[in-house]
Amino acid sequence: METYQPTERTQVRRLPKRGVYDKQQVHAILDEGFLCHVGFVVDGQPFVIPTGYGREGERVFIHGSPASRVLRSRDGIDICFTVTLVDGFVLARSAFHHSMNYRSVMALGHARFISDLQEKSGALRVITNHIVPGRWEETRPTTEKELKSTSVLALDLEEVSAKVRTGGPIDDEEDYALPIWAGVVPLRTVPSIPIRDDRAVDGLRPFDLDRLGRFSRDA
Amino acid sequence: METYQPTERTQVRRLPKRGVYDKQQVHAILDEGFLCHVGFVVDGQPFVIPTGYGREGERVFIHGSPASRVLRSRDGIDICFTVTLVDGFVLARSAFHHSMNYRSVMALGHARFISDLQEKSGALRVITNHIVPGRWEETRPTTEKELKSTSVLALDLEEVSAKVRTGGPIDDEEDYALPIWAGVVPLRTVPSIPIRDDRAVDGLRPFDLDRLGRFSRDA
Repeated sequence: METYQPTERTQVRRLPKRGVYDKQQVHAILDEGFLCHVGFVVDGQPFVIPTGYGREGERVFIHGSPASRVLRSRDGIDICFTVTLVDGFVLARSAFHHSMNYRSVMALGHARFISDLQEKSGALRVITNHIVPGRWEETRPTTEKELKSTSVLALDLEEVSAKVRTGGPIDDEEDYALPIWAGVVPLRTVPSIPIRDDRAVDGLRPFDLDRLGRFSRDA
Repeated sequence: METYQPTERTQVRRLPKRGVYDKQQVHAILDEGFLCHVGFVVDGQPFVIPTGYGREGERVFIHGSPASRVLRSRDGIDICFTVTLVDGFVLARSAFHHSMNYRSVMALGHARFISDLQEKSGALRVITNHIVPGRWEETRPTTEKELKSTSVLALDLEEVSAKVRTGGPIDDEEDYALPIWAGVVPLRTVPSIPIRDDRAVDGLRPFDLDRLGRFSRDA
């Protein structure tokens, strides 16, 4: 089992048994998610911005909106990259033991703005195909002007940890006898019937939801 | 219409037409969401941690896990509180114009650790009932020991902005003629059949999913 080395900053301290450093599990969470929250600091103030991303091996590419607040002239920025999947509400017999089932990944590091246009094109391909496999290849090719007006951050997965909670509520022993419903309400994200754009040309095949492989477990 | 006053830090710069400062819309997003991402800075490094929260008027209460990394002795901490709801994938004819439909709220400010136990109890009630209305009242009362071992942050909603994207893809005019499927794949979060804890006592009424009002729009 290949693992990330916990550091002072990524060692899971609170409820350490939920900590996961296995690369395969981290990759699986990142591949199922499609939204990340990126944290960065400007003048001492933390900002957390949601955006899209994609993974290629031990690197993630993050779509540009976070860059709008930082100097484009900088070559990089220290970030925290977080992806969270919520799997359910955990209802216990006491409010104190309520929880959520979730899988989250946190990666710390110095993210680099990609300046080389060919590298940036490859990164955008990864981000696009992360949502719909093959979408990059079937859409109109990206122009140089578009590439120049998009910013993409690259972060190597080095200082990484995941936290995972599964299963039912863990109550205090004396509370199990209480006549209070306890258990898990599972949650999942599902796509519904695609809505074709009004201006789509005639004769196109409908969009096949099976292409969104991340949701197939919900079928 | 009551609005938040945009500041230098919350003014939406990238695609400013997506910026929303209307309090009612901000509240609606916060009330529909159930997971926040909290950003804070330790030794210059940003951290982004997912956790639960609840809203009471112009204040949000944030459940304690973020506190584990910061000194408990501090009376507060500068944070960025972000909640994001993803409503769909937006597929355009070019990769460049791909997007997501989403609603997100970002609030900046100095969050205070609640030390008064009565105030903390009230805050935990808000957080608990944010997930399942009435749950606080039907569970075993929280003890003083439990209150003392939980940390809760309070953040006043003062420096706040929201971003909202809705609708179909916006393509370059000349791309509309291309024979490429374009449109929106709607996404929603749905609960599935509650799983009763193995150790629940006999004779309990099943958990009623209608209590989770935030999902009723998906019915």
